Amino acid sequence: MRMVDIIEKKRDGGTLTKEEIHFFVKGYSDGTIPDYQASALCMAIVFRGMDEIETAELTDAMMHSGDTIDLSSVDGVVIDKHSTGGVGDKTSLALGPLVAACGAKLGKMSGRGLGHTGGTLDKMESIPGMKIFLSEKEFIDQINKIGISIIGQTKEIDPADKKLYALRDVTGTVPAIPLIASSIMSKKLAAGSQAILLDVKFGDGAFMKTLDSARELANEMVKIGKRMGRDTRAVLTDMDQPLGLAVGNSLEVKEAIATLKGEGPEDFNELCLSCGSILLQQAKIVYDLEEGRKMIQKAIDDGSGLRKLAEFVKAQGGDPNYILHPELFPLAKHIVPIYSERSGYIRHIDSLSIGLSSMKLGGGREKISDAIDYDAGILLCKKVGHRVEKGEILCYAHTNKEGVESVFQQIKDSFHIQNEKVEIPPIVHDYLH
Amino acid sequence: MRMVDIIEKKRDGGTLTKEEIHFFVKGYSDGTIPDYQASALCMAIVFRGMDEIETAELTDAMMHSGDTIDLSSVDGVVIDKHSTGGVGDKTSLALGPLVAACGAKLGKMSGRGLGHTGGTLDKMESIPGMKIFLSEKEFIDQINKIGISIIGQTKEIDPADKKLYALRDVTGTVPAIPLIASSIMSKKLAAGSQAILLDVKFGDGAFMKTLDSARELANEMVKIGKRMGRDTRAVLTDMDQPLGLAVGNSLEVKEAIATLKGEGPEDFNELCLSCGSILLQQAKIVYDLEEGRKMIQKAIDDGSGLRKLAEFVKAQGGDPNYILHPELFPLAKHIVPIYSERSGYIRHIDSLSIGLSSMKLGGGREKISDAIDYDAGILLCKKVGHRVEKGEILCYAHTNKEGVESVFQQIKDSFHIQNEKVEIPPIVHDYLH
Repeated sequence: MRMVDIIEKKRDGGTLTKEEIHFFVKGYSDGTIPDYQASALCMAIVFRGMDEIETAELTDAMMHSGDTIDLSSVDGVVIDKHSTGGVGDKTSLALGPLVAACGAKLGKMSGRGLGHTGGTLDKMESIPGMKIFLSEKEFIDQINKIGISIIGQTKEIDPADKKLYALRDVTGTVPAIPLIASSIMSKKLAAGSQAILLDVKFGDGAFMKTLDSARELANEMVKIGKRMGRDTRAVLTDMDQPLGLAVGNSLEVKEAIATLKGEGPEDFNELCLSCGSILLQQAKIVYDLEEGRKMIQKAIDDGSGLRKLAEFVKAQGGDPNYILHPELFPLAKHIVPIYSERSGYIRHIDSLSIGLSSMKLGGGREKISDAIDYDAGILLCKKVGHRVEKGEILCYAHTNKEGVESVFQQIKDSFHIQNEKVEIPPIVHDYLH
Repeated sequence: MRMVDIIEKKRDGGTLTKEEIHFFVKGYSDGTIPDYQASALCMAIVFRGMDEIETAELTDAMMHSGDTIDLSSVDGVVIDKHSTGGVGDKTSLALGPLVAACGAKLGKMSGRGLGHTGGTLDKMESIPGMKIFLSEKEFIDQINKIGISIIGQTKEIDPADKKLYALRDVTGTVPAIPLIASSIMSKKLAAGSQAILLDVKFGDGAFMKTLDSARELANEMVKIGKRMGRDTRAVLTDMDQPLGLAVGNSLEVKEAIATLKGEGPEDFNELCLSCGSILLQQAKIVYDLEEGRKMIQKAIDDGSGLRKLAEFVKAQGGDPNYILHPELFPLAKHIVPIYSERSGYIRHIDSLSIGLSSMKLGGGREKISDAIDYDAGILLCKKVGHRVEKGEILCYAHTNKEGVESVFQQIKDSFHIQNEKVEIPPIVHDYLH
C-alpha cells in the first residue's frame, strides 16, 4: 500500500477502506508517513469529505494509536461531558459536582485554554493546591469514592490526534467535519467513559460559526459514538455571547460556586439543568429528563452540589476553603468599569472579541507556553436582551496589567446596542440523541 | 505574512497576490516554509485552481528561484521546442538539425527518461562519446557556430520547481493545470530562448489523457509565455499510439537518422514538417508556414539536415560515423518478433503499455538511478489504421534480457485489432498561437 495512492483516491472523490485509513494513521503515528503526505490527504478531505464509515474508522484508528483508559472497575456508568470550547464556559465545574451529588459517576479528561477559549484545567488550577495530574488508579478510585474526577491526560492518549491536529493547525486543514469529529471522538473514546454528552457550541466565539455547521458536527460525533457502542448525545448551545457573566479563570470558578448556591446567571443555570438532566438519564439514575431537572435543582437548593465541589477540590489536593469562602480568591489590581456610550438594548456581545480581550488582560494564553494570570478576566453586567442606559456599566475588566487601555476599548466595542427591544435568546437550541 | 493564511485563502477560493506567491516560492526554496505547508497549498490549488495572473506570478517566482541563462549574445532568435513527453518521441533529434540546417538557432536544455517516457539526453548518450554537459559559454558558442546545441541542465535552473515537483509527485498534487504549466514554463523561461514551441501530447501514453485537457494546458502555457514576452506557441499531438515506429534509445536515434534521409515513418515525418515550419516562422526565417514546410522538406531532400545532425554530434564529442553509418549501433542480443493472433485493422496501440514494456526490456528506468540499456526497445511494424493478418508480425522486441516472456505478452496485448476498417489518425490535432 502506498500513501500517494491513498491521497489520490481521496482527491478523486473515492472512499477509503478500513485498511487504507489504518495504514495512514499507523504510518503517520510511527513516522513512516511524512507530514507532507498527511497534510495533502487532510486537504483532500477538506474538499471531498469522508462518509460515516470512513469517519468511524479514522476515529477508531486514532483512538487506538495510544493508550486507552479502562474504566470498567468503576461501579456504575461513567459519564463524560465535553464542550467544543467557548468563552466563559465553566460548565464542568458546576455541572460535574451537581451530577455527582445526584449519584452519577463523572470521569473526565480535560484540556487547557488557548487563544480566546478557556480550559477547565486552568480554571481548576486557579484554586490553590489543586492537582490536575493523577495516576489512572487515583483517577478511578476518586470516581468510585466521590463520583467525580477531572484531570489532564496522564497516559499517552491518542498521540495520532495530537500530531495530526498540530499539523492541521498550520496547514489550513482544520475545518473538515470528519476530521474535527474524529479528533474529538477518538480522545473521548480512548478516555473510557461509557456515556458522552457533547456540548457543541455555535456562534462567533465558537469553533463552529453557525447552528447548521454545529448540528452537522454534532450529528457526525453522535453517529461515531453510537457506532462505537457508547451512549452519545449532543446539545447545540449558543456562543453568540459569552456563557454566563464571568470570563477568566478564578472569576469563572466563583461563578460556578455562585451557581451551585442558586445564584448563577440565568443562561448558565439553565445549561446546567438541561445538561444535568441528560447526564442523569445517561447514568441511568433517572428515567425521564423532567425527573433529572428536579434532581439537579434539588442538588442546588440543598447545597449538596456545592459540598460536592468542595469534596472534589479537596480530593485533588485543592483548598476547599476557597469553595466555601470564594472571597479568598485574590482580586486583580485593577477592576475597571466599562461604560456604555449609548442607551438601548444589547443585541449582541462578540464573544470572540471578549475572549481575546480577556486573554490580553492576562487571563489567557496566545501560545501554549504562555503563563496565565488567574485573577484576570471580564465580568459582564449586561447580556443580550438587557436594557442599558448611556453611562451605565456594561462590564468590568479585571487585570494586573498596566497600559491596556486599547483592550478596554475593544471590550466596549464588543457590545452591540440597538434601539429596538431584543428577545433574550435561549441557551440550548437543540438536543440530538 | 504567514503561510497558513495563504493556504487558507486558496482553500477558500481566494486569489493569491504577487507578494503571497513570491513569499511561498522564496520560503519553500530556502526551507523556511516546510514541505507539509507546500503540499497542503498544492492540494488546495488542485481543487481551486489559479487564474492567469496567479499562474504567471508562480512561473515568474520559480523561474527566478535559481540561475537564468542569458542567450542575448547569440546572433538571432534562439528557439526551443519542448515536448510534454511521450513514447517514441525522438523529435528533437530530427527536428533540431532540420531547423538548424535552415539557418535557425536552437538552444535546448533537455531531460532524462523516467517510467514509460524516454528522454532526449538518454537517446543522445546512445551515440558513443556524446557529451550532454557543456558550460554555458560552450553552449552559446555552439549555438552561434552550428545553430544547434542540446544539453542537460548545467547551472542551477529553477531549483524551486525541482523541489516542488518532487513533492507533488508523492502527494497526489501533480494534476493541476496551473502547477503543470508553471513547472514547465518556469524552466523554459529560465533557459533563455526567445521563442518556444510546445508539443503538448495527449492520449494514454501522455501526461494529459484527453485532447481537451491538453488544450487547456497548452493554452495556459502559451498565455504565460506571451505574458513573459516570449513568442510562445503550441501544437496538440496524438499520443494514443507511439510516435513513429521506434521506441528505445538507439532505435529512436536510427529512426531520426532515417527521417533525415526521407525514410521516416509518416506520422513522425509530418510532425517534423509541421513543427519545423512553425519554428522557422518563430525564428523569422520564413514569413508563412507553407514556405517553412518547403524549406524543411528541402533540408531532408538535400541531406543538409542529416549533415547537421552529424555536425551537432561531433560538436558535442560524439562519433559522427554512427550518424552516417547507423548500422554501427549495436543490436540487442534478442530480437523477438511479436505475431498477431488475429486478422483485422489496428484500432489502438496502447502507448503507455508499449512504453512500460520497453522499460522492462531494459530501454528505460523505473527509478532515476537505474541504468539504461541503449540497445533495448520495441520496433513497430504496424500502426493504427494498418491492416494486419493473423500470424503477421506486429513488432519486434529488442532486448539483452532473458526471461522476459511476460513482457512479450504485454506488448502483444497493447495492440487492439478490430474487423472494421480504421482511419489513419492525424498526428497534429491543433495549433495554438
